[in-house]
Amino acid sequence: MAAQPKTLDDLFLNTLKDIYYAEKKILKALPKMAKAAQSEQVSAAFLKHQEETEGQIDRLGQVFEMLGKPARGKTCDAIEGIIAEGEEIIEEFEDSPALDAGLVAAAQAVEHYEISRYGTLKAWAGQLGMNEAVKLFDTTLKEEKKTDELLSGLGEKLANEQAAAE
Amino acid sequence: MAAQPKTLDDLFLNTLKDIYYAEKKILKALPKMAKAAQSEQVSAAFLKHQEETEGQIDRLGQVFEMLGKPARGKTCDAIEGIIAEGEEIIEEFEDSPALDAGLVAAAQAVEHYEISRYGTLKAWAGQLGMNEAVKLFDTTLKEEKKTDELLSGLGEKLANEQAAAE
Repeated sequence: MAAQPKTLDDLFLNTLKDIYYAEKKILKALPKMAKAAQSEQVSAAFLKHQEETEGQIDRLGQVFEMLGKPARGKTCDAIEGIIAEGEEIIEEFEDSPALDAGLVAAAQAVEHYEISRYGTLKAWAGQLGMNEAVKLFDTTLKEEKKTDELLSGLGEKLANEQAAAE
Repeated sequence: MAAQPKTLDDLFLNTLKDIYYAEKKILKALPKMAKAAQSEQVSAAFLKHQEETEGQIDRLGQVFEMLGKPARGKTCDAIEGIIAEGEEIIEEFEDSPALDAGLVAAAQAVEHYEISRYGTLKAWAGQLGMNEAVKLFDTTLKEEKKTDELLSGLGEKLANEQAAAE
């Protein structure tokens, strides 16, 4: 094939589609995780992040628009695997008092995937002179980091309760 | 089945097996990524992390020993997916000047998965009173965070060069 050599723009679009797919998948997983959670607090944290995720998908849509491309996802094997592990925890620890600690850990794996992707996209957008996109990615990146911290605190608390009960 | 209800100890062992499998997978992927990389610097970063990974696997072995369990992995869908995406980048961007930027991004997704898992394990080990394990996880966690920062700097540099060339 005599295609043009691929550039940073192609890589950027490729990764944008990857995280778009991932966010849509996360949006579907969060209510299931909220339903599975035993504590109100964990459930509420997941539902709050579901709302945030909607805003993050909207921001991705804006970046697709800047590129003049349709907002379209591309199968993201990473998020499929990360979410599959979360589902496995729900199954294996269904009746366990450690379920919520496992769910929080699964959610943190999701957050860290997003943090890595948005960090990359923000850096690339900067290099490509897409200053508006940099701002959008930065807003999302801050939300993801804050969610991760919140989950860390929650996980710490749950594990403490668990350890005390064992 | 009248199994005992699962506890935080079970969740801990479960996650230990998950990251043990993941590290072994990463150990195999890194030389391939180093070979695919176009720049010496990126290749060297991957080889250096390969060495670090060996030490991290050794630390996990020590934690298995503390538990009196054989060091054994458990298929980790998350790392399978994350590494599959890296392989896809190698294929799709094989002859592209953006390949190294893509490889660095893929490696950062790996790092962030590890950061989330080791952060969780460190917290749980603390709650379970496994102070020696806390120290081991902390050492690895610091290495992973440092590697992520190093990759961020490298990615920034590569994207700059790429953007200047386009």
